[in-house]
Amino acid sequence: MPVAPSIDLNSDLGESYGQWTMGDDAAILPLVSSANVACGFHAGSPAGILETLRAAQRLGVNVGAHVSYPDLVGFGRRNMDIASDELTADVIYQIGALQGLATAAGTRVRYVKPHGALYNTIAHDKHQAMAVIAGLRAVDASLSLVALAGSALIEWAQDAGIHTVAEAFADRAYHRDGTLVSRREPGAVIHDANEVAERVVRMIIDGGVMSIEGEFTAIHADSICVHGDSPGAVEMTRQIRQRLDAEGIVVRGFKQGA
Amino acid sequence: MPVAPSIDLNSDLGESYGQWTMGDDAAILPLVSSANVACGFHAGSPAGILETLRAAQRLGVNVGAHVSYPDLVGFGRRNMDIASDELTADVIYQIGALQGLATAAGTRVRYVKPHGALYNTIAHDKHQAMAVIAGLRAVDASLSLVALAGSALIEWAQDAGIHTVAEAFADRAYHRDGTLVSRREPGAVIHDANEVAERVVRMIIDGGVMSIEGEFTAIHADSICVHGDSPGAVEMTRQIRQRLDAEGIVVRGFKQGA
Amino acid sequence: MPVAPSIDLNSDLGESYGQWTMGDDAAILPLVSSANVACGFHAGSPAGILETLRAAQRLGVNVGAHVSYPDLVGFGRRNMDIASDELTADVIYQIGALQGLATAAGTRVRYVKPHGALYNTIAHDKHQAMAVIAGLRAVDASLSLVALAGSALIEWAQDAGIHTVAEAFADRAYHRDGTLVSRREPGAVIHDANEVAERVVRMIIDGGVMSIEGEFTAIHADSICVHGDSPGAVEMTRQIRQRLDAEGIVVRGFKQGA
Amino acid sequence: MPVAPSIDLNSDLGESYGQWTMGDDAAILPLVSSANVACGFHAGSPAGILETLRAAQRLGVNVGAHVSYPDLVGFGRRNMDIASDELTADVIYQIGALQGLATAAGTRVRYVKPHGALYNTIAHDKHQAMAVIAGLRAVDASLSLVALAGSALIEWAQDAGIHTVAEAFADRAYHRDGTLVSRREPGAVIHDANEVAERVVRMIIDGGVMSIEGEFTAIHADSICVHGDSPGAVEMTRQIRQRLDAEGIVVRGFKQGA
Repeated sequence: MPVAPSIDLNSDLGESYGQWTMGDDAAILPLVSSANVACGFHAGSPAGILETLRAAQRLGVNVGAHVSYPDLVGFGRRNMDIASDELTADVIYQIGALQGLATAAGTRVRYVKPHGALYNTIAHDKHQAMAVIAGLRAVDASLSLVALAGSALIEWAQDAGIHTVAEAFADRAYHRDGTLVSRREPGAVIHDANEVAERVVRMIIDGGVMSIEGEFTAIHADSICVHGDSPGAVEMTRQIRQRLDAEGIVVRGFKQGA
Repeated sequence: MPVAPSIDLNSDLGESYGQWTMGDDAAILPLVSSANVACGFHAGSPAGILETLRAAQRLGVNVGAHVSYPDLVGFGRRNMDIASDELTADVIYQIGALQGLATAAGTRVRYVKPHGALYNTIAHDKHQAMAVIAGLRAVDASLSLVALAGSALIEWAQDAGIHTVAEAFADRAYHRDGTLVSRREPGAVIHDANEVAERVVRMIIDGGVMSIEGEFTAIHADSICVHGDSPGAVEMTRQIRQRLDAEGIVVRGFKQGA
Repeated sequence: MPVAPSIDLNSDLGESYGQWTMGDDAAILPLVSSANVACGFHAGSPAGILETLRAAQRLGVNVGAHVSYPDLVGFGRRNMDIASDELTADVIYQIGALQGLATAAGTRVRYVKPHGALYNTIAHDKHQAMAVIAGLRAVDASLSLVALAGSALIEWAQDAGIHTVAEAFADRAYHRDGTLVSRREPGAVIHDANEVAERVVRMIIDGGVMSIEGEFTAIHADSICVHGDSPGAVEMTRQIRQRLDAEGIVVRGFKQGA
Repeated sequence: MPVAPSIDLNSDLGESYGQWTMGDDAAILPLVSSANVACGFHAGSPAGILETLRAAQRLGVNVGAHVSYPDLVGFGRRNMDIASDELTADVIYQIGALQGLATAAGTRVRYVKPHGALYNTIAHDKHQAMAVIAGLRAVDASLSLVALAGSALIEWAQDAGIHTVAEAFADRAYHRDGTLVSRREPGAVIHDANEVAERVVRMIIDGGVMSIEGEFTAIHADSICVHGDSPGAVEMTRQIRQRLDAEGIVVRGFKQGA
């Protein structure tokens, strides 16, 4: 009997802050297998994070620490020239805080996914990348690291003995060399839900998608990022999930270790 | 052979923040057996906390989470009317963050000591006290709770199955009923190092001190709090420690469990 | 020719923070005559505040500084035991920051309205009330102070030479003695838009409303607070405004000075 | 009768935060003519800022807004990739807040000096420089801008109609082209108080100093920055001031306008 194809779907959650709401965690959690949960540095206040973690626990969704630069007002989207020892300690602090809350929610942190500007920077900046890797290792070297598929970070992390999860984006166009089309270029973001769902299926079944240049490009994706920060985003994620179910593709947390 | 008397000395540490320094952790750590380490809510930024934890680990000093209201600018010294679920989550977050940093430093968090206004409030306010106890239990029910000797909190925590550490203050005057003399009253704080050291010895050997009313009052102290936030405070702590050494009183971390 | 009756309608605005949105300032601004604009302590980041101020300027809406305790995560809704000199300086800082942004937007700050827990506390706590009054006076003694109708604060402010604006709440029930029914009691908040609009009209025309005990109670209101923090709240405000227009009641900023 | 030569000495002040102290404002204020006062984004809490402003007012020291990136934990020393509209609004907010506190202290803000990473960045980054200039102009176009002597910023600001104050550093080595020797290079910082005082005198009398390459380099300085953030720094500033007094050089605030 053939093994059904499977994929991990991850989404950014726990991004409310105090009285401010962001995203619809209750709507998106049943659709995904991994929750990147904010740790308080770009978003997330303790009581709200805890609520999201409890929901993740109830639904059996894997939990990851969505670590960020310390920049609440900028939502972690602004590059920051931070010293390595500070970045390492910031990462440790955030993972630890989320571990504490995850324990309280009856679950645990399985992976780390850097957020926003930090995510983009460490895909190519070895200095900051090694600081993040050092932070992860210092807390728990068995944590996985979610990193941009095809990025140098994956190699650096693997060289450091860290399990990596290559991530692709459901709604983003790719160049033929496997890099993302910049958001500043036309066609960078795909808005049609059917097309996005189709691309997700192709990534899983064919191991790649049609590039913006019109040629097939291989994308090795262990996990695919979907969004829940607007009603439209939730609806798109729902359609992706329905399409995957229809195709017999199982949505489940990425495998850790051999 | 008689067992030498012993006592735990604790001090507030890790209270620098970014470029701002507070206290002299390097000077005070060799003198104490327990370090109440700030968790970022009233003081303490991750890189600085980590440095303090590494020094505590090297010196074999026990580490506790010095949890606070979220009030950096007020240094956690202002009472705050905070909802129970928020306080519980704040406590969990802080303990978790410190656990992460402690793991990175090769040590672990053994106890929780509420800081400042939170410390004073939960000594008598059951609502907030139970929220703190809930937070501690949710992360790790084997953590001890450091609480004001003679306070209602000790009973509430014990009823909840939490190991408590009764704390006395080396430089504070006590009433005959075992309560602290308010700082607003004359004679509340003792400034003479010899007198303070003598009182510490009396607490350990006699189980109490002379009250401000002139009668002996019993103080059950599992741990005595000393200060390191000024050159004078460090010097006083040094004299207390010398006096304890001279009296053959062993300074060591409180015992946990039976 | 008789002078048309008029009233000031005020609403809390500028309460978004960075990427987090709160309320619908664009929808509510055309309906009100006074905008209580957040100053960054409970809500409001500079770029967002500036946008709200520009819209207020375009629409000729009066601007007030909605000053708060420093408590972003708690949205300024938690009582805080703050020293007088700190509260005074915090109030000055917030007024000044908003004045700077108002100047940049081509308008100016005309009044101060304390927010949330600070609003409720200084209605009766003279210590904190005088600290707020001192802050207002230190920046510009010609600023008005919006205060709960019937509260002691109004007298304290007037004694200090400050122009006061007595505020009533459109959707809140009142006791026969003119005090607000606590939110913890049933019937405290009125949810029916027609009823709320009717009460606003009664306040303006009759100078009072039917109390929860069933007797008329006089409410001297210079300004009435309406809400815009949810689609339902915006709709209710729209109905209040339509009703006022239908009754020939002019909505305009409160008068300052004789 | 010849006019005595004069110079403006400026120093960074008001950099304490809540319970954390930085620098010795009381010691440095009598020695300088301009105080760059922190505005809360890299340092400075309202009550402490107000205290510094009152001392500056008593001593007749000019006040400037020491505006920064929003980065308290990093003390504004980390570059931040911030959008122009956010930077402009941040600058306005900070100037306004300081204006409010200055009014309360009986003085006023006369100039703006960007702090730390923002200072260094806008010396050459036109994008961020124009955002800062826009912020200054939006509040009060008559405010002066203190900028690195010889930097492109001075030209950009003057082109925008802003009065500029060229700033030199008393304890920093210069290259023959008038640029600062990077702190990473040996000899970049001069630690000998006599030598520093001598260089200050040379800048004022000769209009330049000996460069690190051994040739005279012209430095047009309207103001010279001195430090007060350590006992050694205060002592050095005291010696600079004594030397200037001995040479008959008057220390007074820079002239504004023609």
